[in-house]
Amino acid sequence: MERKLVNQLKYYINENVCIQGWIYRVRRLKSITFIILRDRSGLVQCVINNTEFDTLELTNESVISINGIVKEGKNTLNPFEVEVKKLEIISKVYEELPIELNKENLEVNLNTMLNNRALSMRHQKVTAIFKVQNIIVNAFREFLNNNGFTEIHTPKIVKEGAEGGTEVFEVKYFENKAYLAQSPQFYKQMMVGAGLERVFEVGHAYRAEEHNTNRHLNEYVSMDLEMGFIEDEGDIMIMEEELLKYIIQSLKKHGKEYVEILGISIPEINGEIPKLDFNEALEILKREYNKTDLEGDLDPEAEKLLYKYSKEKLNSEFIFLTNYPRKKRPMYTMPKGEFGTHSFDLLFRGIEITTGGQRIHDYNMLIENMKYKGLTIEDYENYLSIFKYGMPKHGGMAIGLERITAKVLGLENVREATLFPRDRKRLVP
Amino acid sequence: MERKLVNQLKYYINENVCIQGWIYRVRRLKSITFIILRDRSGLVQCVINNTEFDTLELTNESVISINGIVKEGKNTLNPFEVEVKKLEIISKVYEELPIELNKENLEVNLNTMLNNRALSMRHQKVTAIFKVQNIIVNAFREFLNNNGFTEIHTPKIVKEGAEGGTEVFEVKYFENKAYLAQSPQFYKQMMVGAGLERVFEVGHAYRAEEHNTNRHLNEYVSMDLEMGFIEDEGDIMIMEEELLKYIIQSLKKHGKEYVEILGISIPEINGEIPKLDFNEALEILKREYNKTDLEGDLDPEAEKLLYKYSKEKLNSEFIFLTNYPRKKRPMYTMPKGEFGTHSFDLLFRGIEITTGGQRIHDYNMLIENMKYKGLTIEDYENYLSIFKYGMPKHGGMAIGLERITAKVLGLENVREATLFPRDRKRLVP
Repeated sequence: MERKLVNQLKYYINENVCIQGWIYRVRRLKSITFIILRDRSGLVQCVINNTEFDTLELTNESVISINGIVKEGKNTLNPFEVEVKKLEIISKVYEELPIELNKENLEVNLNTMLNNRALSMRHQKVTAIFKVQNIIVNAFREFLNNNGFTEIHTPKIVKEGAEGGTEVFEVKYFENKAYLAQSPQFYKQMMVGAGLERVFEVGHAYRAEEHNTNRHLNEYVSMDLEMGFIEDEGDIMIMEEELLKYIIQSLKKHGKEYVEILGISIPEINGEIPKLDFNEALEILKREYNKTDLEGDLDPEAEKLLYKYSKEKLNSEFIFLTNYPRKKRPMYTMPKGEFGTHSFDLLFRGIEITTGGQRIHDYNMLIENMKYKGLTIEDYENYLSIFKYGMPKHGGMAIGLERITAKVLGLENVREATLFPRDRKRLVP
Repeated sequence: MERKLVNQLKYYINENVCIQGWIYRVRRLKSITFIILRDRSGLVQCVINNTEFDTLELTNESVISINGIVKEGKNTLNPFEVEVKKLEIISKVYEELPIELNKENLEVNLNTMLNNRALSMRHQKVTAIFKVQNIIVNAFREFLNNNGFTEIHTPKIVKEGAEGGTEVFEVKYFENKAYLAQSPQFYKQMMVGAGLERVFEVGHAYRAEEHNTNRHLNEYVSMDLEMGFIEDEGDIMIMEEELLKYIIQSLKKHGKEYVEILGISIPEINGEIPKLDFNEALEILKREYNKTDLEGDLDPEAEKLLYKYSKEKLNSEFIFLTNYPRKKRPMYTMPKGEFGTHSFDLLFRGIEITTGGQRIHDYNMLIENMKYKGLTIEDYENYLSIFKYGMPKHGGMAIGLERITAKVLGLENVREATLFPRDRKRLVP
């Protein structure tokens, strides 16, 4: 008999069905036993006659298969229940569960949750996080596919990937030394120049950062885009704004159920996202909050203060900071005047979720800027070659999937939005 | 003025437009110069009055911006052309092009093509390969999203990833030794047991294989799925058959243009894909082709002969081989009798494009089988834990994205369907 999902049972009142799933809860009375069965679609109460079945082996989280009749009958879960006619244990539980799953909240600390990731995922408040993450990544792809972008898959084992930084993981690649890519930056630029013009990638990026914070991962999913034939970084910010509005719409359309489970509200973008020049931001931090210890970049406190400012004064949870200092941005960033750049960060709820900007498209200017950054031209030969053969004006951006998920859901630690996080101390499960 | 794409120009006859792209070809006559401009949507002829512009700097593959009027006028490309009123060079070409792009075919060998990947991609026959690849991967996701699957992103830096094989790349992970994941196998099984029931992932997989063949890559994109509450591997084969039919439909719907450029025909699945027991296949190879040198697995010659057999006798380009020998399949494969397994390969046009099967869901049986395979139980602690807490019967499969793309398009070498291949000798670009 074909298995039915719990959320289909309402169409089978008084019919014989097969359902399969995990035991969410068992309640033994004298003559009957109530079981709540959980499958990926929901929970349903099942009633067992104790004289017909041995219910002793039925323990929480065992996997069972039930044949029974769907009977009308109100309970806290549904206006029906299942009268069990046949019962089979597919997999029993061999050891005491390390965490309790049938409570309203998972009352465990982050480490316990991550150490038992496959088990903690069974809790609906944890599942909901990753369902929301799915909606975000699907909306990202859908929006870009609708806007003429081509999805690409670029290598993560690279020889030239260092972008001038040192925080790279080393890979032994046969007799050679290679690295894990810190971003698909060079490859997505190359694919713009390859005539695809507009490309995106959803793939892993690696940063061998030593520090262990609640917002960094050493392996994360980067949602990258890059587009050619722009005027300047303004076109990228417009594209991102439309993209974020699309993601928000998608969350409203497909995420209602999960948002309710998590008890959060979906962020709004009202009109245009405000833009603030980096230097103006420094002025505001000084003037409004007496914060003067910054040099060339923001720190987490500054990001939080600017969020406060943006929310209170500009009525926005999002804010673009533009024109970051040239000395702090990577060598491919298009300079603006002597000290600035055609670049931006997007802050959302007090954290940077995007870095983007216009890139240098002129070969000679790029060489100049690499020298300014003290880089060795010869190390970037393959990347540079595409700039010799006609490169359009272009730019792009990247959003960290785990980070945006965490911030949308108001999670304190980015690891909560990561199935199997990799950090300074964590390599398993 | 907003840029228009070439494929939109038919709506702007006699209007002033801005177009931007690469110079595909230049033809200088005495008083006028013809330029063919290429953007991501197509080619268009542009006419320049030599007395108005200096055309000497206009060389193939330079990036230009043109303002002009769309005039009716038949040429080999379109029923219109653009009369140039303003012309700007965005990026000139600094060096002689290493390959000729404006020929019907790219007449270069594979190495030259790959060494100049970003440039060779500009040829429409190369672009078309990756457009087809996009359709395949989108159809894969779409079909699975429609069938209750959840997309997952699992780590590629792993401690336990070795599945019993030795062909792994080593990563220096701070003070620890780690590896690049050979597949998401363990994680996707864990996520089935985590209650998601049906999961898929499109992500990189790594094999440190020493041999350099036209069908292997050391880094490739694996399209993986895993599903719970199955009866046996038959359910996985049914799912794959439906998936492949969906991909084929999608190619017919969205890929017509590219398939025509490449001059190929899309494969067909008529009715059910035939199934052949592995032992029966050995019999056929012996009886029909006098091939008797196989032990436990097929070699490339056997795969080709079975394709011949399948095509001639069973009228199918696809064939499932089932019941592979237990000693040759990984430890998580559900045994079938003493020597067989509930597993399958799918051969397509003489090459294995999928490996799949039912997995062991019972904790004790899994321990037994790991011992049978000579594995150290302690090395798999995290993977094993999920089997203690209720695991449904489950199974899954994986398709190599580059390999299926190559076979659908009739490409000889899988590298042609890989943007930036990584192989025994190749680590750049």
